[in-house]
Amino acid sequence: MKFKKLLVYNIEESGSLDPASWKKIKTFGDKIIFLPKGDSKLKKELADTDCILVNFGTEVGKTEIDNAPKLKYIGVMATAFGKIDVAYAKKKKVIVTNLKGYSTESVAEFIFAAILEYLRGLEEGKKRGRSKNYSELGISALEIKNRTFGIVGLGTIGQRVAEIALGFGANVAYWSRTRKKNFENKGVKYVPFGDLISNADIISINLAQTKETEYIFNKSVFNKLKNGAIIINTAPMDLINVDALVERLKRDDIVFMLDHSDEMAEKDLEKISKYPNCIIYPPMAYISREAAENKRRIFVGNIEAFIKGKPQNVVN
Amino acid sequence: MKFKKLLVYNIEESGSLDPASWKKIKTFGDKIIFLPKGDSKLKKELADTDCILVNFGTEVGKTEIDNAPKLKYIGVMATAFGKIDVAYAKKKKVIVTNLKGYSTESVAEFIFAAILEYLRGLEEGKKRGRSKNYSELGISALEIKNRTFGIVGLGTIGQRVAEIALGFGANVAYWSRTRKKNFENKGVKYVPFGDLISNADIISINLAQTKETEYIFNKSVFNKLKNGAIIINTAPMDLINVDALVERLKRDDIVFMLDHSDEMAEKDLEKISKYPNCIIYPPMAYISREAAENKRRIFVGNIEAFIKGKPQNVVN
Repeated sequence: MKFKKLLVYNIEESGSLDPASWKKIKTFGDKIIFLPKGDSKLKKELADTDCILVNFGTEVGKTEIDNAPKLKYIGVMATAFGKIDVAYAKKKKVIVTNLKGYSTESVAEFIFAAILEYLRGLEEGKKRGRSKNYSELGISALEIKNRTFGIVGLGTIGQRVAEIALGFGANVAYWSRTRKKNFENKGVKYVPFGDLISNADIISINLAQTKETEYIFNKSVFNKLKNGAIIINTAPMDLINVDALVERLKRDDIVFMLDHSDEMAEKDLEKISKYPNCIIYPPMAYISREAAENKRRIFVGNIEAFIKGKPQNVVN
Repeated sequence: MKFKKLLVYNIEESGSLDPASWKKIKTFGDKIIFLPKGDSKLKKELADTDCILVNFGTEVGKTEIDNAPKLKYIGVMATAFGKIDVAYAKKKKVIVTNLKGYSTESVAEFIFAAILEYLRGLEEGKKRGRSKNYSELGISALEIKNRTFGIVGLGTIGQRVAEIALGFGANVAYWSRTRKKNFENKGVKYVPFGDLISNADIISINLAQTKETEYIFNKSVFNKLKNGAIIINTAPMDLINVDALVERLKRDDIVFMLDHSDEMAEKDLEKISKYPNCIIYPPMAYISREAAENKRRIFVGNIEAFIKGKPQNVVN
């Protein structure tokens, strides 16, 4: 089979995928339409489309699905698909696919990059080297080995973070909504959320955002953090109560790092960016050459698999 | 037993160890003398000393040993002891001890810190975050996983680097003067030096400096490196032919990182510091809170063990 019309919504043709991938995708449909987000032609274009391809964070709700009576397939170019009404899609027999795990390794390695950069004072080291000051005086550092490394959320990324932390010789503990007993055999200990927060020296947040987990990092959680704790969040910032974070940042006894600045309200970014103990990266954890290759391969592969009657990476 | 006189040569009392450690050390001798490097009283003070304590890189050769007829013990406050004539000391029944492995973890973790900082473009990321530019555009990154990670020298530090690299999922290969078959069971492959250099994406130099290994990184070795190779040297810079390094740096197709800038001649530093693909850190790999604690514990412990008739960390 082949789609009648591929509606590419809120994905720019250039920049998101390479020309070869688009060429391949175009063979999956009789025609292809690109629409920017909020385009007024959306409703009209939905009427006869049987395939929608969307980027991270693009909403495809009940309205859009109802406006597309011929819809069979929604392909999401991201791992997260929180903005797609997957239950309603299922009811309408529309299959939704995502890019499961395409950036797992990239994100996991970034987490260690950012933690080590901070722990070792590399910014200061590079600065000195560049200005021909080769003194190590006043540079201090901590090792990951033997520190308590807490992982909040032991999904695909959390598990990979755990494996790398074990390689560093950390005492790795986790809390997750569902306990992963098999994974515990590797030497990773399950602890209740509150205990994890109170005892960890380093915390990596790798939790999916759901109604249950939204703003789970509230005032009482931030109060529990050890003095000197280092927290890195590469998961959605909606897991964090920003005012509670600010209150703890003010005490200047923790470090908070994040890479989801793009998803934050400007007023929230303003609040946290004042504090030198809050290290804000652009959304770059998911970026690696390998992740980009996976993205192309999985996104195109998902559409092709559906066409061949063997859908893969179905999330509903 | 107790020493008659502790001669502390080229170690400053403040800065090198904490007051509690010095207090303890003072109990090991009837008296203690501190002499700065090159002090004219050295010869006189050596005459009746039975214990010399020296810092990294302090020379204790045939002359000094001959000038100290009562000498029984030389305690080196470093892992490297290349400047001590250990063979002659042995002949004169003088025991030499070092701080074996005190900074192994610190150096191994620093190596990953520096590699990841480069691979993930963290400097640019932090700069953007700080200037409220939250765009990831143009940031590129590579993963360690599945890359060929070559380790030159599989001693204590090299082995620890191998273990961490395995945690990252790299293809770990090594060359060492003596093959470590037991360690190969962990999933680390032995390859001849030339093949290691030609095939590795990332190379960590963890080789001890001996007459055999001096300037082992010569022109032909630098020519063999893959385009895009990343080399980090936390071992002595005398393993490197600086002019050969400069020739390859000029081609701008490798990255070389080092943390032994303090040991280099100024003219050599001038030569390499011109190239942005040469990242020079102050000597900070060995610095961590844990390494400092190990240093105190092992240095004091070595003297105490000798006094109790059970010398430890003896290198001759």
